[in-house]
Amino acid sequence: MYSFKELVADFANKFASQHFPKVPGSLYEPCDYFLSIGGKRIRPILCLMGNELFDSIQPEAYDVAIAIELFHNFTLIHDDIMDDASLRRGLETVHVKYNPSTALLAGDVMLIKSYEYIHKVGGNHIHKILQLFNKTAKEVCEGQQLDMDFEKQQNVSLNEYIKMITLKTSVLLAASLEMGAVLGGAGEGNCNHLYEFGKNLGIAFQIQDDYLDAFGDPKKFGKEVGGDIKQNKKTFLLLHALEVASPSQKLQLEKLMAENPANKIEQVLEIYTSCKVNEWANTLKEQYLQTALEHLESIAVVASRKAPLKELADYLIQREV
Amino acid sequence: MYSFKELVADFANKFASQHFPKVPGSLYEPCDYFLSIGGKRIRPILCLMGNELFDSIQPEAYDVAIAIELFHNFTLIHDDIMDDASLRRGLETVHVKYNPSTALLAGDVMLIKSYEYIHKVGGNHIHKILQLFNKTAKEVCEGQQLDMDFEKQQNVSLNEYIKMITLKTSVLLAASLEMGAVLGGAGEGNCNHLYEFGKNLGIAFQIQDDYLDAFGDPKKFGKEVGGDIKQNKKTFLLLHALEVASPSQKLQLEKLMAENPANKIEQVLEIYTSCKVNEWANTLKEQYLQTALEHLESIAVVASRKAPLKELADYLIQREV
Repeated sequence: MYSFKELVADFANKFASQHFPKVPGSLYEPCDYFLSIGGKRIRPILCLMGNELFDSIQPEAYDVAIAIELFHNFTLIHDDIMDDASLRRGLETVHVKYNPSTALLAGDVMLIKSYEYIHKVGGNHIHKILQLFNKTAKEVCEGQQLDMDFEKQQNVSLNEYIKMITLKTSVLLAASLEMGAVLGGAGEGNCNHLYEFGKNLGIAFQIQDDYLDAFGDPKKFGKEVGGDIKQNKKTFLLLHALEVASPSQKLQLEKLMAENPANKIEQVLEIYTSCKVNEWANTLKEQYLQTALEHLESIAVVASRKAPLKELADYLIQREV
Repeated sequence: MYSFKELVADFANKFASQHFPKVPGSLYEPCDYFLSIGGKRIRPILCLMGNELFDSIQPEAYDVAIAIELFHNFTLIHDDIMDDASLRRGLETVHVKYNPSTALLAGDVMLIKSYEYIHKVGGNHIHKILQLFNKTAKEVCEGQQLDMDFEKQQNVSLNEYIKMITLKTSVLLAASLEMGAVLGGAGEGNCNHLYEFGKNLGIAFQIQDDYLDAFGDPKKFGKEVGGDIKQNKKTFLLLHALEVASPSQKLQLEKLMAENPANKIEQVLEIYTSCKVNEWANTLKEQYLQTALEHLESIAVVASRKAPLKELADYLIQREV
């Protein structure tokens, strides 16, 4: 069994190869550029871990892992166009460095390239892998559309937000694990439990992300605390606060969002604390984490094989916050 | 054997079913809207014809035909964004009727949906079909990128233009035929000849399209004659004229393109005629058509099965012009 760190190095090595031809450079150079920006590569590692849960890692698992990472990068290139984001990891996004049409087409061709790696899966596994890849890809698009819809929508319920987050981010984490498992010969029951582990872990991670943006230690968090509040971003915290706040607190919250005063972040945090939004978020995160771990527990393989996934969950979700 | 007309009706019937779920409507309604605009559906019919050349039409051929038509519509939605085109077939394009982000995402999900239909191909055919579909999809993106590059490029050679047209439009026609043939059990040699038939027919058709835009009968042509000249569009005619014109004619042509005088179309046509660009285009078209027909001839099936494809070529390429 490999540790998470070992798999990261292993995948980085495999992923460093040239994925695109040289010609036409006007199309493929932007693709290479975007991949060179880097990333955590968490999804392909999940695929390798899902594979190793049932067998030693197979060559095809690397092909599917690469497909997943290319797919993820396709979504980032297109999301950056939609959000008109100018920077990613401190470097220019594709539509800024080149132009929007080229970024659109570079994203398209990266999606198609991901299917070229899926095509490398031989035998009968191709049917199950392609089916799961297609279903997940569609759901990620649905999640992105809901995210854009919610930005303009006055009232978004917590359940709607969880649905959106699940589609936009969690299903790809879940499917990455399951695709690895399928290639490892896992049966349907084990596949379902592994998928649910990934899905619930993803939601727990997103709750933590929203929490840290408001209540995190600026030194540890790595980005400006309160960014979501500043931008009136709909988060777990804001949506819950709007649901449980008293009428006067709700009015004050809406006023702060409309008027953007200088001390907005502090004032919103005060309302959050008085509504116990922080405690609620920690409890909710813990619930999703527990559900994830129960599904991991239910997978019918010896406990020692599950250790790397348990370590990953511990690493991603900080219990002390 | 079915006639082209019968296949058109047959496919229209199959394609009329609902391809997308209802929710989220903000994503899928734009997809349904774009498909409702209609189209000639020539590519899926080619897939069915390629299939029927070797066997009676199989259910899987309809799935692949639908995948091809959805793929084609994905390219149109994204091309319309890149070209900032406001109308298609007299109706608003997706990014105008909705917004650019939704159009981008609707195109993405339509491409993914096309892979869901490819996934319906069972057994071992899936590998060959997916490989050809991926290769063609990538080439179509390359063709679109080259087309955008050429718009800004001062000197484009005729060979570069033929390469671009081949990638942007002909390879999908060719691959549509071949995918049908693969499902019909055709061997590699027959597949290659059918592919080359489609590719060369596509180039002949494009030469004719460029010719008719300049020299067509306005009553028969259905759109304004001289549109390409008006827009300085790089066409077979313009690129050849720039290659064979005398230095003074070339200077005059460049002046007309830069200054856009009122009688530009007549003057450019005069230069074209004096350079015999019209005769040249007809000869070139005829050469590509002959190459296409030779490949059709070389396919090892009885001549009677080839009759519908021969009729299609006769219908698409008007010999009298």
